[in-house]
Amino acid sequence: MYTLGIPDEEFIRGKVPMTKQEIRILTIVKAGIKRDSLVCDIGAGTGSLSIEAAIQAPEGRVYALERNPEGIGLIKANAGKFGVDNLEIIEACAPDGMEQLPLLDAAIIGGSGGNLAPIMDLVDSKLKVGGRIVINCITIQTIAQCIEYLRNRKDYSYDAVQVQVSQLHQLGSYDMVKANNPIFIVTCIKK
Amino acid sequence: MYTLGIPDEEFIRGKVPMTKQEIRILTIVKAGIKRDSLVCDIGAGTGSLSIEAAIQAPEGRVYALERNPEGIGLIKANAGKFGVDNLEIIEACAPDGMEQLPLLDAAIIGGSGGNLAPIMDLVDSKLKVGGRIVINCITIQTIAQCIEYLRNRKDYSYDAVQVQVSQLHQLGSYDMVKANNPIFIVTCIKK
Amino acid sequence: MYTLGIPDEEFIRGKVPMTKQEIRILTIVKAGIKRDSLVCDIGAGTGSLSIEAAIQAPEGRVYALERNPEGIGLIKANAGKFGVDNLEIIEACAPDGMEQLPLLDAAIIGGSGGNLAPIMDLVDSKLKVGGRIVINCITIQTIAQCIEYLRNRKDYSYDAVQVQVSQLHQLGSYDMVKANNPIFIVTCIKK
Amino acid sequence: MYTLGIPDEEFIRGKVPMTKQEIRILTIVKAGIKRDSLVCDIGAGTGSLSIEAAIQAPEGRVYALERNPEGIGLIKANAGKFGVDNLEIIEACAPDGMEQLPLLDAAIIGGSGGNLAPIMDLVDSKLKVGGRIVINCITIQTIAQCIEYLRNRKDYSYDAVQVQVSQLHQLGSYDMVKANNPIFIVTCIKK
Repeated sequence: MYTLGIPDEEFIRGKVPMTKQEIRILTIVKAGIKRDSLVCDIGAGTGSLSIEAAIQAPEGRVYALERNPEGIGLIKANAGKFGVDNLEIIEACAPDGMEQLPLLDAAIIGGSGGNLAPIMDLVDSKLKVGGRIVINCITIQTIAQCIEYLRNRKDYSYDAVQVQVSQLHQLGSYDMVKANNPIFIVTCIKK
Repeated sequence: MYTLGIPDEEFIRGKVPMTKQEIRILTIVKAGIKRDSLVCDIGAGTGSLSIEAAIQAPEGRVYALERNPEGIGLIKANAGKFGVDNLEIIEACAPDGMEQLPLLDAAIIGGSGGNLAPIMDLVDSKLKVGGRIVINCITIQTIAQCIEYLRNRKDYSYDAVQVQVSQLHQLGSYDMVKANNPIFIVTCIKK
Repeated sequence: MYTLGIPDEEFIRGKVPMTKQEIRILTIVKAGIKRDSLVCDIGAGTGSLSIEAAIQAPEGRVYALERNPEGIGLIKANAGKFGVDNLEIIEACAPDGMEQLPLLDAAIIGGSGGNLAPIMDLVDSKLKVGGRIVINCITIQTIAQCIEYLRNRKDYSYDAVQVQVSQLHQLGSYDMVKANNPIFIVTCIKK
Repeated sequence: MYTLGIPDEEFIRGKVPMTKQEIRILTIVKAGIKRDSLVCDIGAGTGSLSIEAAIQAPEGRVYALERNPEGIGLIKANAGKFGVDNLEIIEACAPDGMEQLPLLDAAIIGGSGGNLAPIMDLVDSKLKVGGRIVINCITIQTIAQCIEYLRNRKDYSYDAVQVQVSQLHQLGSYDMVKANNPIFIVTCIKK
């Protein structure tokens, strides 16, 4: 039985970039996902975050939005591998495809494809009071836009961190320090 | 009701150094703590890791070892504040005070006071097969000793990361990037 | 005789924040300062960058702009301590005070006080072709504005890095890893 | 004419790992190389550090030790490309090949192949009083051994930092933050 923090190498991934274990753990925990949470994962990629969210919410449901056909295939393959059946794939480029979502407890934004503000507006319209949005940003423009958006929303509080993980890679009798790319993680709560 | 990832500012801390939120989240998740886990937190400091572990293991029990009287007072105060009653404080300098522990599912080593190898030996003697030890290291000597110890233990597998978190500190209309000290997190599993 | 990379503790600093040694080294080298360079240091703070630039340009001249009276005092004190006489202090809040500058080989922007675009415009009007501007940013908004500005200037090329230095702090028989705040360093060249 | 901080892409490199620009700048500056310095670069790899050192010491000489034939070829090719003629290649695995060196002003250790202590002993025997050794470490074991060695040498003072550089990689209208591996840089001075 899987718990939070599935090792990276257990996911089927192809060439789609994947959120690494430590960032997945922090994202899922900061999103405050509970047993019965309804969660949306926008820009789901390989589905690694969706799978971990679905395992944390066995009585809830996770909606994974992804536009890339290769990604869709990987999400399905991973859902099968990890025996997750409370995960629904929506093949669309957000904010398209979001109107049909139910009221959510949490939303995760891993990829915004340059449409962060309209996506945030639509997520907000679907988010319960007290609900959380966690945004993972890998570019300067996205973190800057994200903060600018949130500073203009008095109905949200936010906190943001940059996390840089290096792995101690075992090479013979040495442990080499190898960097993963840093990620900005923004957590916001709807007041 | 509290879940994993209590904000730093909610802990009562005084001048005792405290493990920060992101590192607590990663440590607790990597330790694989379940509802009924028996956990030992060695060098508990303010008790922030012990409290989070105790909340994750409501049907289990957490043993917090701490030698510093100021730390003991803070652990008690925090246990009271967060309504945790499955947390037992052992006033001792590890490896002293560990003989009395039951068989454990997980051990967290936050402070080893220079005695890492004897502590690891004693933790090992108390750890169930499949159990996990998570060691947080803030010095070069401790991470090096930890890896050296584990490379000589064929009955353990380990993985290790260095995590550096910076907080985006809201200052007027700016978000300043402020670094927390990097931490090495070593996770090992008893085969 | 001082060369590049003066140890932090040799500067007189008070409570004014100071650019740390490694960032000073990278900034001065990336600015391409030569023996006869004319350099402007905007938001000079304690003058640590101005002093290092002045030592690298003994036949050139460094203009240090600073608005804070405490900073001005520290720059003067440091110039005296390090025996630098090719450093001129301009007491002003940039872009004010920049009109009087001669044509420059390099400009360093350590503090922009929220006026980055007009400062960049004025620096550009004073910069020789082939000259360089190095901008140190400590906030998300500043690095984002800096990049946005440069992406709209086809007459400049830029490269940007984020540098995070941790010091191994000798504490008894241990070396503790202590983080300095990360800095974005943007280097641009006028084509 | 080249000055310190040659862009990475200008070096001929093949598959041999290369010290990146920011680390080269810090290493050369911390080594205190002057116009007439005699410098040894141990584990020279592609020769990127040797070339930068040789350019800083036009009246001095740089001795590049390298055992790997591919590395030797790259050092020669780079010396040719950058017009450096005060660079001597010694094809050997340190500490072999070091006996023939003259008294040195500075030594750079980029690769120690597991022989750090004997290399340090031999470097010490060749180093002038006031001379500097800068060691770049990419593994936990090397930084730990390096510090342990230096803590036992009362005739050296040392300072050590860990430097992690991320590059803002321009991708379309975004700047993605991409991490280079962190490096420990130890600087020691012979008293």
